[in-house]
Amino acid sequence: MSEKKLQFDMRLEKVWERREDFMAMNPACDVPVLEEPGHTIICDAYALAEYLDDKYPEPQLYGDTAEARAEVRRLVSWFDGKFHREVTTNLVDEKILKRFLKMGEPNSEAIRAGSTNIHYHLDYIGWLIEERQWLAGDRFSYADISAAAHLSCVDYLGDVPWEEHRPAKEWYARMKSRPSFREILGDHIPGYPPPEYYADPDF
Amino acid sequence: MSEKKLQFDMRLEKVWERREDFMAMNPACDVPVLEEPGHTIICDAYALAEYLDDKYPEPQLYGDTAEARAEVRRLVSWFDGKFHREVTTNLVDEKILKRFLKMGEPNSEAIRAGSTNIHYHLDYIGWLIEERQWLAGDRFSYADISAAAHLSCVDYLGDVPWEEHRPAKEWYARMKSRPSFREILGDHIPGYPPPEYYADPDF
Repeated sequence: MSEKKLQFDMRLEKVWERREDFMAMNPACDVPVLEEPGHTIICDAYALAEYLDDKYPEPQLYGDTAEARAEVRRLVSWFDGKFHREVTTNLVDEKILKRFLKMGEPNSEAIRAGSTNIHYHLDYIGWLIEERQWLAGDRFSYADISAAAHLSCVDYLGDVPWEEHRPAKEWYARMKSRPSFREILGDHIPGYPPPEYYADPDF
Repeated sequence: MSEKKLQFDMRLEKVWERREDFMAMNPACDVPVLEEPGHTIICDAYALAEYLDDKYPEPQLYGDTAEARAEVRRLVSWFDGKFHREVTTNLVDEKILKRFLKMGEPNSEAIRAGSTNIHYHLDYIGWLIEERQWLAGDRFSYADISAAAHLSCVDYLGDVPWEEHRPAKEWYARMKSRPSFREILGDHIPGYPPPEYYADPDF
């Protein structure tokens, strides 16, 4: 929304409380949910991201041809699906979610798997960025947002081996410099600070 | 593709063999992949479904306004995400996948969870269809395709309690009558036949 210069207020929703008024807005009872002026309600991360590009096309974040949009969406699936399954859940869910939900000790096998898998994904980012300005092509797109969102969660733990993956690091430094992303990097988990370099674009 | 009257040939890809030529088309090494005349390659189920609607908009399967598309996509996420997690994996993965991959006995707790959860989803379909012609509104959409795809997998096992959910059953009978869907219902797993009523629109 910041990339599109849209004004918005954030509201916290404790989805686990299953508040009746919230369930009436979104029967799936999850976030994000967007309430538009005039009370149109848009639910679901995928539907919402696509909706914003449909409704507020300046600048377009999915691309301007069917083929360009397919490439952006392929990479969004890559990061929201494959990266999430192979890296994020193994590291972030084990180290942070389990701690906050008091679900016992992190599983060291899962953490090892996540720490191994992340190299392959950083190589893939490096391979893409060697030929392209941004991940899905020469324009900044939702693929960059999706990849950076996942990486920033892992980076909050200090678990991204940036030094071994310079092209990916250079791309991520450009992401960190974007005003839209800087706001997000200011978000902290109370009682669990990120590494010092976390929000620094010159890391 | 049949709904859009697009001609195509199907090719089988044994993704677990990780064939090099296939990996070059799709580094994620999963299906579906579409090869267009002229060799444009479109990968990933989500990107591919959206691409077909972008490129061949007659008839539109995602709707004609940003709001209508958001509703279709919300429901696609509902079925591909929530239904898949709460029902399909618990029933289809346990009963079929485990058998074919020789992964041991089905987990009876998972099967019980799937059999309970499906009622809630059939009620939700009934609730939607009470007010609408099709799941996402008055036009047939990709939400119907997504819901029917998941339900047909569970129905192949004979595990959909249709008699307790008449409105959902009436909607599914209409789905079964569509020529595009009839072809799919002809697909069988060798050595594992579906119930007799499976492909019958008057079930």
